[in-house]
Amino acid sequence: MNEENLVEKKVSSEDIFKGYILHVEKDMVSLPNGNTASRELIRHIGAVCVVPVTDGNEVIIERQFRYPIDQVITEIPAGKLDASNEDRLEAAKRELREETGYTADKWVDMGLYYPAAAYSDEKITMYLATGLHKGEQDLDEDEFLNVTKKPIKELVDDIVSGKITDGKTQVAILKAYEILKREGKA
Amino acid sequence: MNEENLVEKKVSSEDIFKGYILHVEKDMVSLPNGNTASRELIRHIGAVCVVPVTDGNEVIIERQFRYPIDQVITEIPAGKLDASNEDRLEAAKRELREETGYTADKWVDMGLYYPAAAYSDEKITMYLATGLHKGEQDLDEDEFLNVTKKPIKELVDDIVSGKITDGKTQVAILKAYEILKREGKA
Repeated sequence: MNEENLVEKKVSSEDIFKGYILHVEKDMVSLPNGNTASRELIRHIGAVCVVPVTDGNEVIIERQFRYPIDQVITEIPAGKLDASNEDRLEAAKRELREETGYTADKWVDMGLYYPAAAYSDEKITMYLATGLHKGEQDLDEDEFLNVTKKPIKELVDDIVSGKITDGKTQVAILKAYEILKREGKA
Repeated sequence: MNEENLVEKKVSSEDIFKGYILHVEKDMVSLPNGNTASRELIRHIGAVCVVPVTDGNEVIIERQFRYPIDQVITEIPAGKLDASNEDRLEAAKRELREETGYTADKWVDMGLYYPAAAYSDEKITMYLATGLHKGEQDLDEDEFLNVTKKPIKELVDDIVSGKITDGKTQVAILKAYEILKREGKA
């Protein structure tokens, strides 16, 4: 399918804010009809998330406070890259170990997740980790989260019923469940 | 479970940028250990998305260019609220009709999706729409998208294999499929 009728081209770009996490840009683009429009967007370093599943089909999850929505929510282990060119699998291994203490024998790349492609370039790679081994958590002094675990089937029900609201957590657990089912493991 | 050990409290808030879509804030918060930290965040008006499923279990999908990631991607119909207090179901009906021409007899609220709760307060309500009737598309002059359709089972395979990368699209289609399966319809 020819999709040239959809493409926008950059005309100019203005830096609005260079923060610690968010870099905000306002660009002017030319539209397919020749008109000009503005695009406000976030540049983000990128991130990874992990669905760690025990041999008993339980998922290691976290309860974490998220300031923008003023709620403690259920999430899978996740974190930003240390550098934009950091190996994503290595980042996932680090985040899993630091946040939960677990290491894993087997890692499956479950693909990409763009959380908000309309206004952010953040790209999250999702992993399924199995063959888990428990070790010591290693949180930053200013990082606070409670680690717990729950059967994957119950988490799928919590997602379908709307109890789990975090985007990456919903996607990654539903995908992990599909993959484990297709392998005859869930 | 007592989760007071996780909560952050606002100390101060600074407006960084008030754009057309994004409102950027930098807040100072007090952490559970008494330390202070900064939080960069986006305030967003909120949005809705719809999985429109035909009687033949095909989903109406869109191909749309997303400037921040410089790609044409597959998405379900979606859009921002016109006002923060707009009825979300009405917004979903409007977006479905304007972007695809379809109206629907039956709407199911599939719950919330926070795309990036670490740095955005955007809240998306997901709907499943069935009993579809085809009408006329009504796009803005500067809105460009190609509408097509595909069997829901093939879309689930595209999600599991990593071909569909948009966050809300992955979540909402996987949830819709689970719901239709549990009703014996997919």
